Amino acid sequence: MSLLVVGSVALDTVETPFGRAEEAVGGSATFFAAAASLFCPVQVVAVVGSDYPLSALDFLRERGVDLGGVSQVEGESFRWSGVYSYDLNSRETLETRLGVFADFQPEIPAGFRDSQWVFLGNIDPELQCHVLDQVKAPRLVACDTMNLWIDVKRDALLELLGRVHLLLVNDAEARQLSGEYNLLRASRWIQQHGPRYVIVKKGEHGAILFMPEGVFFAPGYPLEEVFDPTGAGDAFAGGFMGYLAGAGSADPDELKRAMIYGSAMGSFAVERFSIDRLRHLRRDEIFERVRAFREMTAFEDLSVGAHAI
Amino acid sequence: MSLLVVGSVALDTVETPFGRAEEAVGGSATFFAAAASLFCPVQVVAVVGSDYPLSALDFLRERGVDLGGVSQVEGESFRWSGVYSYDLNSRETLETRLGVFADFQPEIPAGFRDSQWVFLGNIDPELQCHVLDQVKAPRLVACDTMNLWIDVKRDALLELLGRVHLLLVNDAEARQLSGEYNLLRASRWIQQHGPRYVIVKKGEHGAILFMPEGVFFAPGYPLEEVFDPTGAGDAFAGGFMGYLAGAGSADPDELKRAMIYGSAMGSFAVERFSIDRLRHLRRDEIFERVRAFREMTAFEDLSVGAHAI
Repeated sequence: MSLLVVGSVALDTVETPFGRAEEAVGGSATFFAAAASLFCPVQVVAVVGSDYPLSALDFLRERGVDLGGVSQVEGESFRWSGVYSYDLNSRETLETRLGVFADFQPEIPAGFRDSQWVFLGNIDPELQCHVLDQVKAPRLVACDTMNLWIDVKRDALLELLGRVHLLLVNDAEARQLSGEYNLLRASRWIQQHGPRYVIVKKGEHGAILFMPEGVFFAPGYPLEEVFDPTGAGDAFAGGFMGYLAGAGSADPDELKRAMIYGSAMGSFAVERFSIDRLRHLRRDEIFERVRAFREMTAFEDLSVGAHAI
Repeated sequence: MSLLVVGSVALDTVETPFGRAEEAVGGSATFFAAAASLFCPVQVVAVVGSDYPLSALDFLRERGVDLGGVSQVEGESFRWSGVYSYDLNSRETLETRLGVFADFQPEIPAGFRDSQWVFLGNIDPELQCHVLDQVKAPRLVACDTMNLWIDVKRDALLELLGRVHLLLVNDAEARQLSGEYNLLRASRWIQQHGPRYVIVKKGEHGAILFMPEGVFFAPGYPLEEVFDPTGAGDAFAGGFMGYLAGAGSADPDELKRAMIYGSAMGSFAVERFSIDRLRHLRRDEIFERVRAFREMTAFEDLSVGAHAI
């Protein structure tokens, strides 16, 4: 039930209406692992520069995350800095310095190659394909992508889609990729190009899972203060994949539950800067939030059989 | 269990990417009654001009709607015309001709004054208060409003809020009214000014019910073709209030179910122009859609008790 993630481990400088975090631990693989490690053993493949404060990842190791695939090489680590609008609904990237990430060629350690559950974080789709060349027979492969790759690496991305089971994108990316405005049509288009499952993330409006067996909605958890939205999508992915790997199943009922666990982890991630909330999160807090999600969406359908009367 | 609605009965000329409807039956009271009449007896108070094709409302009468409060007076009927953007997410009003609606002074027929369930459609809040002066002891009063009244009749609107149990607004209106961007804070602000319950409608993103007892989400029903969004909000309100009046209860569990019935009716309304879909809708189709909503949101929470292990 090991879960492999390939992505970035970075340093983020983030400004929100609530404050500023300098050179905080960030990156898709970091947020993903911080969330997923509460559910199952996680294996990380990433690259950092010689300046990376690796001890900041010790808490992951303590949770059973195998960082054996994180290579430290000469040079600068990947740095991102951005500032969020007052309503946190948009952000401006101030600077992206790829550093050693520019030459990232993910090599999967021999011990990671038989992972059953694989998440390809948002990197060049050619590199995502290169990862898939190295893993043996994964049970479920999910991938993320972004507007940049849809623009400039469309062919590689389409090749990748033919090789993954699940694509996780936001609504704008689903529309850009498919050329369809309607999300139901957009997800059908994507499904026709490979992935059996599509998750469309809509930020505060929640997330939708499109399966051949039906559609499932997870609402956005209503928070009075969203502190820092950075990493919410990767924490969602970590909760989603971590839950599935822990359950050892990807049947439709488990996929639905995984959507709720993903949403719960995304909602925790934004309560503090960086990975601070995920770092100190307890399993009982997760279960409590999942119950809150159930309260927010469950209703008894009294009409069952009523039309027959 | 009678349900009183006061609002507009209008003629709409609507253009969407799918076609055009000329002088079609519209108005908040019309959409509301078309939806609510599938659940309970409805009483309508409105005004139309001498040019209104009243026979177009015959189907409501056949469903038990009491149109005794619809007065026809000399002059032109309320007309609205608008055009929707290609993605149906925005619309431009081409023309609004109030006609006899400009002098609407809702008089509630004696037989309607002991209605237990009351919906005040989107009209001047002074007139909404005037309606409340005439009804006796309603069990639940819900009201709608719009940006115009928040701008120019704020004091009257605040007076009204102190007299209603439920406010139904869209997200932009909730933010404008409260001055809070965060919807949880916005709804708290509104609740502090009177209504025990607030429903925030978010179009394709669904609707949220804020109660002192908790929050409930109804997703937007995923439709491949949204034909004409006009009246969706009023159909939602009609389904919501009609369900409650039919159930004869507004306890939290019924309010949750009412959110789903409202969402179902809103989703039907947009499948055709005008009230065409609601006119021919059968109760078994409603029950089927409610079951689809349940499929889209229900999950079994396997964690119950798990944290205690």
